[in-house]
Amino acid sequence: MGDIITAGVLVIGDEILSGRTKDKNIGFIADYLTNIGIDLKEVRIVADDEADIVAALNALRARYTYVFTTGGIGPTHDDITADSVAKAFGVGIDHRPEVVERFKERYKKPGELNEARLRMTRIPDGAELIQSATILAPGFRIGNVIVMAGVPSIMQAMMDIVAPTLRAGERMLSESVRGDCREGDIGTPLRAIAEAHPDTTIGSHPFLDENGKSNTRLVVRSRDQAKLTAAMDAVRAMLVGLKAAQ
Amino acid sequence: MGDIITAGVLVIGDEILSGRTKDKNIGFIADYLTNIGIDLKEVRIVADDEADIVAALNALRARYTYVFTTGGIGPTHDDITADSVAKAFGVGIDHRPEVVERFKERYKKPGELNEARLRMTRIPDGAELIQSATILAPGFRIGNVIVMAGVPSIMQAMMDIVAPTLRAGERMLSESVRGDCREGDIGTPLRAIAEAHPDTTIGSHPFLDENGKSNTRLVVRSRDQAKLTAAMDAVRAMLVGLKAAQ
Repeated sequence: MGDIITAGVLVIGDEILSGRTKDKNIGFIADYLTNIGIDLKEVRIVADDEADIVAALNALRARYTYVFTTGGIGPTHDDITADSVAKAFGVGIDHRPEVVERFKERYKKPGELNEARLRMTRIPDGAELIQSATILAPGFRIGNVIVMAGVPSIMQAMMDIVAPTLRAGERMLSESVRGDCREGDIGTPLRAIAEAHPDTTIGSHPFLDENGKSNTRLVVRSRDQAKLTAAMDAVRAMLVGLKAAQ
Repeated sequence: MGDIITAGVLVIGDEILSGRTKDKNIGFIADYLTNIGIDLKEVRIVADDEADIVAALNALRARYTYVFTTGGIGPTHDDITADSVAKAFGVGIDHRPEVVERFKERYKKPGELNEARLRMTRIPDGAELIQSATILAPGFRIGNVIVMAGVPSIMQAMMDIVAPTLRAGERMLSESVRGDCREGDIGTPLRAIAEAHPDTTIGSHPFLDENGKSNTRLVVRSRDQAKLTAAMDAVRAMLVGLKAAQ
C-alpha cells in the first residue's frame, strides 16, 4: 500500500463569492487530483482579504499534504495572494530578479513595464517558480502550497507543470453503475453492502434522468481492485434482485 | 445604512471532491444572496464525514449571519448531514411526526416506506422545516443554519421558500465595464482610484476575449449609489485617457 496523499484547494476572489464569475477551477482540479492519486479533502473559497486568505491557508496547509490556490496573482490592487502567502509563512516577499528579467524582455515599450506589471514579479522568499515559455506571470510553490493563476487556461498549464513534482499517491479506483431506481428503494440494502465492504467507499448520488424521473448513480471507490470488484458485484446483484422483485 | 448581513456556504459531498459531480449550487447561491443583499463571505466543500462537517459548520455559523448547506440529506448511508448538524448544535434528532405522516401518504405500497426513506424524516430537535407541496424530503433551519438538498432543482426551490424569512441586508450595488485593455496597463491608476474611493470595492477581472486577447472587466461595488457612480466615472475616465494615450 502506498501513502495516502491529501490536498486542499483555496479559491481566492470576490468575483466568485458575488456570483459574477462562476468558478471553473474546482472541478478541474478535483478531476486532476483524483487522476494522479491525490485525495482532495476540502475546498474553501474566500474573498480578496488578507486576513481571510492567511487564516484559510494556514488551516489547510497544516492539515493536508498539499494546498492548491487559484486567483489573485495578477497586476491590480485586488491581487493580494502572493503577499498573503508570504504573510502566512512569515517570510519576506520581493521582486524576483529572473522574473523581472523576463518581464523586461517582454515589455520593451516606454512605460509598459510599470509598477502594476512589476507587481507580478513579487515572489515570496524561498518559493520555487511555476513557469514556462508561455506563462509570463509565474505561479510558485512554497512549502506544501502551490499558488496558481485564476484564469482557467493558465491554471491548467500550471497544474501540468507542477504535477510531476508531487508525491504520487496510490490511486483511488472507482466504478459506477446507473441504478435505474430511486435512492429510497436501495438505501437499506446499500447500507448493508457498505458495512460488509469496509475498505471501500460507496456513494449514492440522486439525479433526474432523461425522462425526468428520480434516478440514482452508485459509485464504489477503493484503492484495492479486488475489494472494489467485490463491492461492485454486491451492488449489481442488489440491483438485479430489486428489478426481479418489482 | 442598513445592517450588513453575511453568509457562508457549506457544500457537503464526496462526489464533488472526487470531481465526479460538478457543483452547480455555489454559483446559484452566490447570485441569489447578492440579489437579496446578503454578502457571501466564504464557501467550504467537505466530504461526507461527520467530524469534517461538524468542524466546518461550527466555524461558519459562529462567523456569519447565516450558513447555507447543500447535500447529504437523502436516504442512503452516506447522507449524514442532519445527524452532523444535530451534533454541531448539541441537540437530539428524531423522526419528525408531521414528516412521517406525509411520507405515509406518499409511500403506500408494502415495503415502500422502508428504513432508508424514513431516514429522511429525521430532523434535529427544534429545527423548522423547509418544505412545500412539491418537496417531499424537507430541508430545515436550525439557529442560523439552513440545510438544503444537493439536487439543484430542489435546492433552488428551498432557497425560494427560505429567502423571505431572512433578514434583508442593504443591497450591494454594482456596475461593470469592459476595459478593452490588459490588466497590467491599468493596475497603477486603478489602485489610485480604489484608494480615492474608500466606500467602494473595485475589482479587476482578466479574461480572454472573443479575439483571444487578454482583456479586463472592471467591477465597482458599493452600497451607496452616489459613491458607486463617482468611482465608476473615475474608472471610465481612466479608460478614455488610456485609449487617447495609445
